[in-house]
Amino acid sequence: MPPKAAPVVIDLKFNPDEVKAALADAFPGRDVVNRADPAQAGRDLAQARYAVVWKSQPDLFARAPNLAAVFSGGAGVDHVLTLPGLPDVPLVRFVDPTLTTRMSEWVALQCLLHLRQHGRYAEQAQRGAWAELPQPEARDLTVGVMGLGVLGQDAARKLQTLGFTVTGWSRRKKTLNGIETYDESGLDAFLARTDILVGLLPLTAETRGLYDATLFAKLSRKGPFGAPVFINAGRGGSQVEADIIAALRSGGLHGASLDVFSTEPLEADSPLWTLPNCIVTPHAAAASDVKALFRQVEAQIERHEAGLPFEHLVDRTAGY
Amino acid sequence: MPPKAAPVVIDLKFNPDEVKAALADAFPGRDVVNRADPAQAGRDLAQARYAVVWKSQPDLFARAPNLAAVFSGGAGVDHVLTLPGLPDVPLVRFVDPTLTTRMSEWVALQCLLHLRQHGRYAEQAQRGAWAELPQPEARDLTVGVMGLGVLGQDAARKLQTLGFTVTGWSRRKKTLNGIETYDESGLDAFLARTDILVGLLPLTAETRGLYDATLFAKLSRKGPFGAPVFINAGRGGSQVEADIIAALRSGGLHGASLDVFSTEPLEADSPLWTLPNCIVTPHAAAASDVKALFRQVEAQIERHEAGLPFEHLVDRTAGY
Repeated sequence: MPPKAAPVVIDLKFNPDEVKAALADAFPGRDVVNRADPAQAGRDLAQARYAVVWKSQPDLFARAPNLAAVFSGGAGVDHVLTLPGLPDVPLVRFVDPTLTTRMSEWVALQCLLHLRQHGRYAEQAQRGAWAELPQPEARDLTVGVMGLGVLGQDAARKLQTLGFTVTGWSRRKKTLNGIETYDESGLDAFLARTDILVGLLPLTAETRGLYDATLFAKLSRKGPFGAPVFINAGRGGSQVEADIIAALRSGGLHGASLDVFSTEPLEADSPLWTLPNCIVTPHAAAASDVKALFRQVEAQIERHEAGLPFEHLVDRTAGY
Repeated sequence: MPPKAAPVVIDLKFNPDEVKAALADAFPGRDVVNRADPAQAGRDLAQARYAVVWKSQPDLFARAPNLAAVFSGGAGVDHVLTLPGLPDVPLVRFVDPTLTTRMSEWVALQCLLHLRQHGRYAEQAQRGAWAELPQPEARDLTVGVMGLGVLGQDAARKLQTLGFTVTGWSRRKKTLNGIETYDESGLDAFLARTDILVGLLPLTAETRGLYDATLFAKLSRKGPFGAPVFINAGRGGSQVEADIIAALRSGGLHGASLDVFSTEPLEADSPLWTLPNCIVTPHAAAASDVKALFRQVEAQIERHEAGLPFEHLVDRTAGY
């Protein structure tokens, strides 16, 4: 057993003030090193047993060689898996009702924005034009959710409650009550009936560059808008932005909502910012609540020190 | 018993092409007079037993004196109650899952737009500005739904599923599972905790001009945006538009979403169209599906002719 108050190192590229404020009440009785605090930059990390990381400084694992576990500061772990010198210790993802709820808020908002033609109504409002548009119902559109982890399942259920026809896809078959699901072998069938594609996949070797012109061409064109909508809140590395831009311009896509980008921040001169019916948010769909993150890490450490296994362990081979 | 195929008169200020198309399959074996069809303008209405109406021509009841029932083409009936010569026969409202679902889509969209600060993100996007805003969660905002009929109850439940804290108000106390409700005597207490007010009230003597500066001043200012949001998809006659404009300008209201107006169409030069954080839609939140309307009227006529009472009868004293 490690000592009861084994030190924790915090290496989070989050808002530094929020991290500092959250640390005031976190990890009682335990030594904490916050690498984002310049005053603590030189501190020795040799005794640290736990690390909480998000886009960490590259020397973390060289300076902290005695870690017993690494906690991701978010739902995704691609940023951890690529860190130099990642030790062979349990890697734990952040699963939090707050994060899940926020993600579903964003996904539901984007689906409703496209369904209810908010962009066209906003444009009409600028001209003071009172004109009702032909309006399909939610059930007339099939939303296909790619990625059926905690986030995808919650979004799928909420979209279903709102009235959308919802299907789901995951690499390995998952069963959801009342929602038709597809696995790897059913990808083309899944895409062929999808009017709104919601991407909530992790970034892995298989998903890098997945959302490209070839995939968009497989989506349904039979829906009420005549062309599909692409929504991505997973990882920017999974999308080919040049193909999204071209498809929005050619009508191959009816619209898009993007919260993630291959390079973040998105360049100020990217056409994505201002293309009609393309909605851009700055990786803000589901920001981690730092206080909730620390509470969860505390609880996980308690489990571990009581001899219980960690929850939400990452499968390094699968990459998520 | 009336004759099996008693004639129906249709007097709907809807899209004439949609009405005509829907009538092609409606009321089989029954004589139908469509007053929106110029070719039928002169037809005798003396034998008509049923009328389906929405903002009808003023001479309807003078020309059709033998009606056994009047069906509203929408959920609201204020437009029927004010028609000259309304006979003392059963008045039936249109209650339809389609209409309910569409209304809840619109209400959920508007609540999410304000919660997720869509207007500010859209403005940032125009400048290519990547900047995350402090973001409350749905549960941090209390949505107060005024009007707990079929529409209000459905909207309340869906908002709750999305994570909002939801309360409800109706003139007469209603009980909803898991949702705190208030009645007439609890109006001020209800308003005092409401961060987003959703108006789904019918237009009656009591609700005319209800949403005014005095009411807005009673709403909560303790929410994450420091001022309340007003959303109305009930009737425009219930709101004082000058007070909404003044409150949006002074910060008394953080935002608004309006689908209904005291005069429709809203004048092209109304400041409401372009005020920041004010969203205007052209009475399009929940358009009646004409085919569904005719199917429901057919079913109600069948009930009536089989000796059963009508469903969804209007209480004329209450005004809804």
